[in-house]
Amino acid sequence: MPAISKKGTNMPESPIRKLVPYAEEAVKKGKKVHYLNIGQPDIKTPQVALDAIKNNTLETIAYSRSEGSESYRTKIAEYYKHNSIEVKHYDIIVTTGGSEALLFAFGSIMDVGDEIIIPEPFYANYNGFSTASGVNVVPVISKIEDNFALPPIEEFEKLITPKTKAILICNPGNPTGYLYSKEEIKQLASIVKKHDLFLIADEVYREFVYDGIEHYSILQEPGLEEHAIVIDSVSKRYSMCGARIGYLVSKNKAFIKTALKFAQARLSPPTLAQIACEAALDTPQSYFDEVKEEYVKRRNTLIEELEKIDGVKVAKPNGAFYCIAELPVKNSDDFAKWLLESFDYKNSTVMVAPAAGFYSTPGVGLNQIRIAYVLNEDSLRTAVKILEEALKVYKD
Amino acid sequence: MPAISKKGTNMPESPIRKLVPYAEEAVKKGKKVHYLNIGQPDIKTPQVALDAIKNNTLETIAYSRSEGSESYRTKIAEYYKHNSIEVKHYDIIVTTGGSEALLFAFGSIMDVGDEIIIPEPFYANYNGFSTASGVNVVPVISKIEDNFALPPIEEFEKLITPKTKAILICNPGNPTGYLYSKEEIKQLASIVKKHDLFLIADEVYREFVYDGIEHYSILQEPGLEEHAIVIDSVSKRYSMCGARIGYLVSKNKAFIKTALKFAQARLSPPTLAQIACEAALDTPQSYFDEVKEEYVKRRNTLIEELEKIDGVKVAKPNGAFYCIAELPVKNSDDFAKWLLESFDYKNSTVMVAPAAGFYSTPGVGLNQIRIAYVLNEDSLRTAVKILEEALKVYKD
Ligand SMILES: Cc1ncc(COP(=O)(O)O)c(C=O)c1O
Ligand SMILES: Cc1ncc(COP(=O)(O)O)c(C=O)c1O
Repeated sequence: MPAISKKGTNMPESPIRKLVPYAEEAVKKGKKVHYLNIGQPDIKTPQVALDAIKNNTLETIAYSRSEGSESYRTKIAEYYKHNSIEVKHYDIIVTTGGSEALLFAFGSIMDVGDEIIIPEPFYANYNGFSTASGVNVVPVISKIEDNFALPPIEEFEKLITPKTKAILICNPGNPTGYLYSKEEIKQLASIVKKHDLFLIADEVYREFVYDGIEHYSILQEPGLEEHAIVIDSVSKRYSMCGARIGYLVSKNKAFIKTALKFAQARLSPPTLAQIACEAALDTPQSYFDEVKEEYVKRRNTLIEELEKIDGVKVAKPNGAFYCIAELPVKNSDDFAKWLLESFDYKNSTVMVAPAAGFYSTPGVGLNQIRIAYVLNEDSLRTAVKILEEALKVYKD
Repeated sequence: MPAISKKGTNMPESPIRKLVPYAEEAVKKGKKVHYLNIGQPDIKTPQVALDAIKNNTLETIAYSRSEGSESYRTKIAEYYKHNSIEVKHYDIIVTTGGSEALLFAFGSIMDVGDEIIIPEPFYANYNGFSTASGVNVVPVISKIEDNFALPPIEEFEKLITPKTKAILICNPGNPTGYLYSKEEIKQLASIVKKHDLFLIADEVYREFVYDGIEHYSILQEPGLEEHAIVIDSVSKRYSMCGARIGYLVSKNKAFIKTALKFAQARLSPPTLAQIACEAALDTPQSYFDEVKEEYVKRRNTLIEELEKIDGVKVAKPNGAFYCIAELPVKNSDDFAKWLLESFDYKNSTVMVAPAAGFYSTPGVGLNQIRIAYVLNEDSLRTAVKILEEALKVYKD
């Protein structure tokens, strides 16, 4: 029998999806499961986008340009301008989700054995794209006590070797919900300039920032033009995860030229979705205001309820729609399985994402879980109640 | 300034797209360009698929399962059954085009430095996916004199080393139009079994076979279950290139399990497109009959007209919608540029794909071009006439 590659063997399983069979089993047994584990918003896609799909007049669903249609990229550039980011359509490559943008960025700037420094906990699929690209993730631990703020910049500097090619941040963060300050971005900017590295910022949650704080993009930082690569996505912004549209944005021309070769090899991003996403750029501000208000309410409810539980510690997120909670358990992986397999409260249970999968350092975050607040307030309240009852009886 | 990776530097430019700026220049100067260079069919997408998009009732365009929706995969399995291929929905992973299927297959079975044997000329983007995966392509030359039939199997055997992990064929072939016979598939089957290799067959043109010959899939070959990986795509079959839907099909469970990890890292294939493609499976047979009839007419016209030109040699294709023609020129790359830059016949010219980009061996195929017969008969006739006039005056 022919063999699977080492790369394939080493590809990590998604920490979010590996509990799915347990959840399916629980549902089969008649339990109601509250899903706190996934980043799939329940919010409605903007009507303009849905209408654009219904009203499209294509007779042949043809390839688009590999870098995305020019009209779409021109409108994306306008969107950035409204967000105080000055880029042109030729600084943008439309990708198949932020996922593909990450893959193209990794391939364009790193060779096998190269290193990328990432504050952990981080979006788990960074591991998958690193393994697929043969790149080594070098983690810097950020702490729940600090609300997952940027670790001291010396911690980064200590880890830089000749193999280091980039620092990657997620801003605001999945799974932390942390929003980096302008000062933190400036610290990162100075270190990547000093060591001639790329700074990749995954800003797919840019729109989800709360409490009146403003998002500061690495593309707004003067003098960072040759270093800054932004990963963006429509998935969460317009609740269009299934559209599979994201972008790579950079003013570094050599980088864009290189990433375009990866884009050409796979021919084109989805055509229908580009039509929907171009229309989505006309979504009225009221849509975002309502969505934001909804998430703030959910976050407040979630944090408030979690903090009432004995032994639970939470970092308060200023952005995205996730938070990390520390539980009075030894191993949240076992706890999460137990919740699905062996526990119910009034015939209901919850599915959470064990946080260990968001850390690269072994043994860290074992007592943490990530909670996505993509459920309405009532469900959230019920879910936290279930968690509370579960912790009362759980023994590890 | 931070540096681009070696991998990024080595990523090949698409041989089909690199002439685009010259064509754009020609159009700007007022020339009419007949495009013989691209594999984007002008055929209409089946109405059932277009209707499914218009009638969809999604309120939130959410992620689908990473492996594609179960209902879609179940219907795909039925499609294969109608084509005498016995697979189940769990043998199928829905990918973002055949392109992504190739990328997942390469990553799942090959490590950096591993080798894949491919008869050349081959689909140029195999080079891109190989470079992205750090894999080396080992070509076996197939010849225009033989109509690009399978090279003697000893030629493959000579090239097998401990690093060889797979043989990749395209059946029917882009750019050759060659359809492998059952006997040729059996020869390949025996060699991959003997050497414990994977056999990847890119069957995206399966439906485009002419002259009453039947397509024989590697999935029909008994005893090849653990070795066979099929790359498939809706792009050409339903003229839905922009949908970005393809599939990986294999009965090798370790392979599917591994490929699924790559699929999970990128979350989901496009959701809207899956709805359209599921509906496309209900396309009436009359659609395919008409499309096939149209392509046969185009092919016959193209070959007939090309054979009339002095010094032009063509391989007669039995499948797909491409053919390779040998021209009385030294370097078809220069010739193709010259056609766009310096030539016109009644203010029109043609764009062709120089074939060198489809070969991996340097210096081979320099006098060949690939012609895609995706234009109607009249345009094809005009295009060949322009080619004829051009060859009369071209000096290299
Ligand atoms: C931080 C982060 N980056 C990137 C992605 C990829 O999203 P997509 O490929 O849907 O754009 C996600 C999705 O959850 C994410 O959370
Ligand atoms: C032989 C072959 N394989 C794969 C593909 C990839 O097509 P897609 O990604 O659109 O499915 C193409 C497209 O032209 C092709 O010709």
